[in-house]
Amino acid sequence: MALKVLAERECIQLLASRVLGRVAVVVDGEARVFPVNYLVDGDDIVFRTGEGTKLDAARAGALVTFEVDDSDPLYHTGWSVMVTGPLEAVTELRELRRMHGLPVRAWGRDGRHVVRMPIARVSGRRIERIANST
Amino acid sequence: MALKVLAERECIQLLASRVLGRVAVVVDGEARVFPVNYLVDGDDIVFRTGEGTKLDAARAGALVTFEVDDSDPLYHTGWSVMVTGPLEAVTELRELRRMHGLPVRAWGRDGRHVVRMPIARVSGRRIERIANST
Repeated sequence: MALKVLAERECIQLLASRVLGRVAVVVDGEARVFPVNYLVDGDDIVFRTGEGTKLDAARAGALVTFEVDDSDPLYHTGWSVMVTGPLEAVTELRELRRMHGLPVRAWGRDGRHVVRMPIARVSGRRIERIANST
Repeated sequence: MALKVLAERECIQLLASRVLGRVAVVVDGEARVFPVNYLVDGDDIVFRTGEGTKLDAARAGALVTFEVDDSDPLYHTGWSVMVTGPLEAVTELRELRRMHGLPVRAWGRDGRHVVRMPIARVSGRRIERIANST
């Protein structure tokens, strides 16, 4: 089995290829992890949310971690991309209007708010099966 | 769309029904999120890992967060379960021998170490589409 560190460009391509990720918010020193439907909008990750931990983090401009992965259990291959950046609540009317037109729905019930996360730091890795290895 | 808070028993059943989750470790105030292949072993979540952030957390007995989810994008239904507990490196020989026989492989390249996480706190929620709602 080989583990390959991915280049930033490849990480962004993988991010843009998926629609479901997880965002981790640190609250009182503990990570809280939530699935989100997202899209990559320019240099930002964008998703919708309601009142709660994620929106609180966005209003505080908290640094959060976003993760996307894919696995093939049969061939034991996969990749994982992690992004770190400050979460921001989108409040400018023009941006809100534009973003409400984007094809992204909230994972949960309430998606009245739009938040974005600049892709400040990104890292990724891929696992690959090597012939004749276990 | 309705969001239902899940009972602990249902959370554990959902946890036990999957093999791929994500573990979030807080390092210097930032969450680091990693996919892991896991299994539920009694009251613990067990997975294998190599040297790195997860093993460091286990050796330090750090509180970590484990998350598993499932989504049906077509029907926009899904569930998410989050577990919080201290990560522990398994070092007792008898336990290690038993755990090395369990059907769980490392997600990444190196799975020489076995770590466990008592299911100390668990919470979960389910989203369900309601007829005639959007």
